[in-house]
Amino acid sequence: MTKDEFKRLLDEKRKKVEEAIDVYLPKADTRPHIVHEAMLYSMKVGGKRLRPILLMAAYELFPSELDPMPACVAIESLHTYSLIHDDLPCMDNSDLRRGVPTCHKKFDEPIALLAGDALLTHALWLLADAYKAHPQVAADLVCDLGDAASSRKLIGGQVEDILGEREGKMTVDRLNFIHANKTAALITSAVTMGVRLSSGCNAQRLEAARQIGAKVGLAFQVIDDILDATSDAKTMGKPVGLDERNEKMTYVSLYGIDESRKIAEKLSREAVELCGALSESADFFKALIEYMQNRIY
Amino acid sequence: MTKDEFKRLLDEKRKKVEEAIDVYLPKADTRPHIVHEAMLYSMKVGGKRLRPILLMAAYELFPSELDPMPACVAIESLHTYSLIHDDLPCMDNSDLRRGVPTCHKKFDEPIALLAGDALLTHALWLLADAYKAHPQVAADLVCDLGDAASSRKLIGGQVEDILGEREGKMTVDRLNFIHANKTAALITSAVTMGVRLSSGCNAQRLEAARQIGAKVGLAFQVIDDILDATSDAKTMGKPVGLDERNEKMTYVSLYGIDESRKIAEKLSREAVELCGALSESADFFKALIEYMQNRIY
Repeated sequence: MTKDEFKRLLDEKRKKVEEAIDVYLPKADTRPHIVHEAMLYSMKVGGKRLRPILLMAAYELFPSELDPMPACVAIESLHTYSLIHDDLPCMDNSDLRRGVPTCHKKFDEPIALLAGDALLTHALWLLADAYKAHPQVAADLVCDLGDAASSRKLIGGQVEDILGEREGKMTVDRLNFIHANKTAALITSAVTMGVRLSSGCNAQRLEAARQIGAKVGLAFQVIDDILDATSDAKTMGKPVGLDERNEKMTYVSLYGIDESRKIAEKLSREAVELCGALSESADFFKALIEYMQNRIY
Repeated sequence: MTKDEFKRLLDEKRKKVEEAIDVYLPKADTRPHIVHEAMLYSMKVGGKRLRPILLMAAYELFPSELDPMPACVAIESLHTYSLIHDDLPCMDNSDLRRGVPTCHKKFDEPIALLAGDALLTHALWLLADAYKAHPQVAADLVCDLGDAASSRKLIGGQVEDILGEREGKMTVDRLNFIHANKTAALITSAVTMGVRLSSGCNAQRLEAARQIGAKVGLAFQVIDDILDATSDAKTMGKPVGLDERNEKMTYVSLYGIDESRKIAEKLSREAVELCGALSESADFFKALIEYMQNRIY
């Protein structure tokens, strides 16, 4: 696949996700307006849409009669809720996200809290509602996303992150727990959910999806650590250098930038190699993993 | 049914709910401990357990091979998340709930925020996971509870409540929206979920469940308004008189205490009359509606 061809497909998919957000989120004029405006504001300020695109790419290895777009919107809603709550004053107290005011800055704290709650609720409800004609798929998808978002995984990783900063001591074990759960669990669920919705879903492919997702997810977070140390606020749309300033233990502080880059490259390479267990022809999917590896923001 | 017999059954069911919380919530020693301790703290400080008991009572009209206890824990988890988030400093800023420190007072604000998020996630995930052998039931339950908890209902009611206080003007329309959504929607879902799990589930009984739930839920909130104006903090386990102090529009401020009591009685009576559409013998269920009507805390 040429770089141009990949770029074209990537843009096409991003556009599809953005159109689906309008379809599968409650309209801004739903009562009460303000919370629906806040939900849409945070969903529409942009972002790379990597989780839904990863879901779509996994699904397209074996397209089925099922429409993957509700699941794409569900995982993006889940991700967006986690960002809104992470940005709140009692958490990271961030004013900017993706170059624009965070939800509680644009609206206010109670509305941001409730918009986050609402996006989380919507994500899991949407899976059950949109796939109700295929209840087994619906229930499996709620299990996948609900598990990834749970107190043991996404929320658990966030909690350990807070504890690490508070106690001022980060261990390698804790860093790995945080990366595996705060970041990789949701990215893994993107791949498994894509496989679930495809016509090629079976136990072996689900297991391959989990292994690929774990590697892609970990690589993604290592790159994030590198970008925080090397990029600038304009490119990233948010402040950088926070990890170093907060003396946060990251892959960069542990291994240095060059070694971290090698770790991420190895993880991505291994993920690409595992793609054979999913499908013989997975060109876009593989190119997406490489793109995520080489992203600059 | 004698008063003693009802009381015995009520206590028995409350105990069953409390035992099920230990079974269906992650253990306190799950990593990271602190968020699981916070979830269990808020789930176990007591409360009347009316939503799960209502669910159980509706289910027991036509018991089935399905175990209603996971659904009971799911609805109680959902209710508890909403209390934890309502109590946060940016919301009601409450120090006490059920006579003990609120979650963010016992732990801290970030942990309370995340414990609330985790209980919401757990509630919907648990329905999909526990009933996965009956995926149609699982998907329907996620739809019921997810809809009741959505930005249009539970969260929507909370938002309108905030807007009403902020704008300093409450209309009858807004008060009805708040009561119907912030309180009655979740109580309604308790009844519909109980019917869903029963062997007597059909479209007519689900519709009856919705009508009964709406009336019981509204009566519940009217009683709440009355208790805020007439009870004391010791009995209620939380401060009272807040509505009047905050010049909040409630059923009491609109209609006075006596008239409000009559409204609640009428709603409860109508709900009891509708029980015939559910089952010919619904003694405990009817007694429960009357008990909720006559509750003193």
